[in-house]
Amino acid sequence: MRERLYLYDTTLRDGQQTQGVQFSVADKIQIAQALDLLGVDYIEGGWPGANPTDSDFFAARPQTRATFTAFGMTKRAGRSAANDDVLAAVMNAGTPAVCLVGKTHDFHVTTALGVTLEENVEAIGASVAHMVAQGREALFDAEHFFDGFKANPTYALACLEAAYQAGARWIVLCDTNGGTLPAEVGRIVAEVVARIPGDRLGIHCHDDTGNAVACSLAAVDAGVRQVQGTLNGLGERCGNANLTSLIPTLLLKEPYASRFDTGVARDSLPQMVRISRMLDDILNRVPMRSAPYVGASAFAHKAGLHASAILKDPSTYEHIEPATVGNTRIIPMSNQAGQSNLRARLAEAGLEVPPGDPRLARILDRVKEREDQGFAYDGAQASFEMLARGELGLVPRFFEIERYRVTVERRRNREGRTVSLSEAVVVVRIGSQRVLSVSESLDESGEDRGPVNALSTALAKDLGPYQASIDDMKLVDFKVRITQGGIDAVTRVMIDSEDGQGRRWSTVGVSPNLVDASFMALLDAINWKLIRDGVGPA
Amino acid sequence: MRERLYLYDTTLRDGQQTQGVQFSVADKIQIAQALDLLGVDYIEGGWPGANPTDSDFFAARPQTRATFTAFGMTKRAGRSAANDDVLAAVMNAGTPAVCLVGKTHDFHVTTALGVTLEENVEAIGASVAHMVAQGREALFDAEHFFDGFKANPTYALACLEAAYQAGARWIVLCDTNGGTLPAEVGRIVAEVVARIPGDRLGIHCHDDTGNAVACSLAAVDAGVRQVQGTLNGLGERCGNANLTSLIPTLLLKEPYASRFDTGVARDSLPQMVRISRMLDDILNRVPMRSAPYVGASAFAHKAGLHASAILKDPSTYEHIEPATVGNTRIIPMSNQAGQSNLRARLAEAGLEVPPGDPRLARILDRVKEREDQGFAYDGAQASFEMLARGELGLVPRFFEIERYRVTVERRRNREGRTVSLSEAVVVVRIGSQRVLSVSESLDESGEDRGPVNALSTALAKDLGPYQASIDDMKLVDFKVRITQGGIDAVTRVMIDSEDGQGRRWSTVGVSPNLVDASFMALLDAINWKLIRDGVGPA
Repeated sequence: MRERLYLYDTTLRDGQQTQGVQFSVADKIQIAQALDLLGVDYIEGGWPGANPTDSDFFAARPQTRATFTAFGMTKRAGRSAANDDVLAAVMNAGTPAVCLVGKTHDFHVTTALGVTLEENVEAIGASVAHMVAQGREALFDAEHFFDGFKANPTYALACLEAAYQAGARWIVLCDTNGGTLPAEVGRIVAEVVARIPGDRLGIHCHDDTGNAVACSLAAVDAGVRQVQGTLNGLGERCGNANLTSLIPTLLLKEPYASRFDTGVARDSLPQMVRISRMLDDILNRVPMRSAPYVGASAFAHKAGLHASAILKDPSTYEHIEPATVGNTRIIPMSNQAGQSNLRARLAEAGLEVPPGDPRLARILDRVKEREDQGFAYDGAQASFEMLARGELGLVPRFFEIERYRVTVERRRNREGRTVSLSEAVVVVRIGSQRVLSVSESLDESGEDRGPVNALSTALAKDLGPYQASIDDMKLVDFKVRITQGGIDAVTRVMIDSEDGQGRRWSTVGVSPNLVDASFMALLDAINWKLIRDGVGPA
Repeated sequence: MRERLYLYDTTLRDGQQTQGVQFSVADKIQIAQALDLLGVDYIEGGWPGANPTDSDFFAARPQTRATFTAFGMTKRAGRSAANDDVLAAVMNAGTPAVCLVGKTHDFHVTTALGVTLEENVEAIGASVAHMVAQGREALFDAEHFFDGFKANPTYALACLEAAYQAGARWIVLCDTNGGTLPAEVGRIVAEVVARIPGDRLGIHCHDDTGNAVACSLAAVDAGVRQVQGTLNGLGERCGNANLTSLIPTLLLKEPYASRFDTGVARDSLPQMVRISRMLDDILNRVPMRSAPYVGASAFAHKAGLHASAILKDPSTYEHIEPATVGNTRIIPMSNQAGQSNLRARLAEAGLEVPPGDPRLARILDRVKEREDQGFAYDGAQASFEMLARGELGLVPRFFEIERYRVTVERRRNREGRTVSLSEAVVVVRIGSQRVLSVSESLDESGEDRGPVNALSTALAKDLGPYQASIDDMKLVDFKVRITQGGIDAVTRVMIDSEDGQGRRWSTVGVSPNLVDASFMALLDAINWKLIRDGVGPA
């Protein structure tokens, strides 16, 4: 008999407490739809009445299979639940479920709320009962439960029982400050399960010690049957339990995989990478490469010994098959890698080279030589591919740069304001043609975007027969670092590009001259794109 | 009786397996010194013989209180330990301790190594014995131990026992693929402890399910007495157990705080934030804001309800006091908490401003406004000081930039070689004087050093009365980062400068134009230097 385990997403509410995160209504709708498609059981949309965006979102919320939930607070002391305007705003959002946070730590009741312990218990029971009477599924969010239990277990449990007796479907145990460790969570949950059935209990953890996922698992082991968290672990301070990590673990790992059914089906798991990236896109954040399951490096095998074993059998250094969660294996190149790494990496680029081919050694030598100069190929796969193709004689001669000139000028304009202007001239030879392009670097508001932008704009302005292929290319990230200090400083530029099909590739350029280094990376990016698009030389 | 728990850092070895990470010898020396100051017990420096950087580093390794450890592999089958050249290279590094990785999973022995199970056990014992005979402290890194134990516990344990019998000081249980969950780690370690004393066992976890910290704690709970990990959780794929999270937990949280002594003292903990940021600086990575304990957001209280409670008593929403780990509380809405921080920071720059001075609020507003634009004052104290001095009316008017122009040109020279040349013209007004300077950017070998170099050379060529003060200034580091993606990209440049007295200071500039941003940081650096030298305006 498999048991049902419920997944409760609070990205749109607790996730919004992340420093720097502010969702729009449209963002919230997009995220809610993705969560629903994934299959979580509950979507907590926000706190209606607490801010205009949340109120607007509830008015515009999409139809979902998941139970839509509004968040709020138990009624204040000294008034009835029916007369509490904060509670009324939550109710008026009209969601099938309502989650009310209340205090369970005696210290907070008296210090932060300033009411008696009895008044607080009464407020919990009355608020939950009011929601149930209105036909809503009620959840009670037991704030600071673990700290409260450690301070005064009798009182903390009395708060839970008030909610339970009043008909709460779920009592959610919150480690609000995030400082409780997994073993302690397990021990305390076991004591709660002795009083309230586990299939009425949820867990809500924060990552302040880096244990939110493990604490959630410990709670499930001890009997809770609802797990709360957020996509990509968004949330106040260090974030909430990361559902992007938890969901694959619950579906793929024992004892969970055999024991539980969740709203998320196994065949929805390959969406995880896409959903995780979508959220980063909405927030304009650089995705975390090392994120469990979904990170771009999660299945990257850099060590030479690992890579050669992976070629024999991927399970030698992978705990799951990357495709299960929509991810892919990467065998990056670096000066630590050997020929087997190299062959695997070449194969990924569609280049089959037989073992022992002398060109393999040449490519490795060239990688080592260039890494000594400051290049770094393990984060710049596309540049590695261009280097390898060069050695293999597989780079078509698309075009040649004859010369370029970039100028940055800064002076006061007529109004006395200091303004700058960047301008680039590029001369490209395409077959027998010579194309002279010039570009200023100005954005829509007339502001200067700098020399690299001017140069890339000039270069991409007229590439004749190749123009169609590069028109949908854009530069999405740009990183510069000095690889040697002092007067011998050499600049390394890494560029991430993206195209209309959502392909993303990274290139690297190295030079003592920053503009040169950028230009080198740009050229690699364009050449790579032309090759991937199957464009032939003019 | 407190027990000793040992901390083993592998940032320089396993941390280097992170995609995109390539330490230089100088980087490794700097990290090793920081680790030693922090107080970890073992520093694993790399694999001597595996690549030139690691070999060079062992030759140049700093004196440390921590036990310096070289990493290597157990001898290959069919030769003696004394005749194994890979082992010899490791031995020749001359470290007091040596950690040898070997297989313990039967499947890997036959598949990846292609030797018999008996040959592998023999290789482990003989290799460890060889190291011990040479007077080294020997560690055995039991690769894939947890997966191996699940597949064939008898064989996995036989491998451990071979190392133990041969005199290994530590047998390190590795969850190489990172897929084992905390409860399983605890259960398996307990079975090992029944055979080998816990004070001879270590744990080495990876974060592929987001549980590396929790798995390490579960192993300690079950009896191991050495914990391996890396700073900031660097490492292959999703990284290793994060020592930056584990160390504060082990020192501050029960049951660990009362039960164990580690090499890291409580009063070293406030270094955690600085060391974590230093590593990100070396790698030119954006520090993870939500990192447990050390992240910039780890003690940021965004929710209104939380912030007001925090003002009454910080323990209401904080699991530890932020200063314990060298971090600071952030309350976005509270001006009050900000002002005391600010006064402390101004005092560091020798600027005493009385509490309540209205200029404090103005400085805070200006910092906030500029940080919204992309400035980062955390790592640029000199620029922060210049901003504050600006608001306090304490910046002398040394000189003014009237205009500048920088050109980068790249073309083929007469010999057909592609060469580039950067040139800058700067017009500076000093008092009533107008100085026009021009500079090419060529080093001693005639190679172009790029536009920022040309600009700084031109600027520093003739600053009239200030020339003497800036002559001993040099640019020692230069980092560039895009702070917003896509077409709205804004460039942040951080410059580290140094002078003849060995003073080092950091400044920041932000602009969509890279050259402008660099120039801004350069000007701050020069002005700061003139002020610190006590130069008066001309």
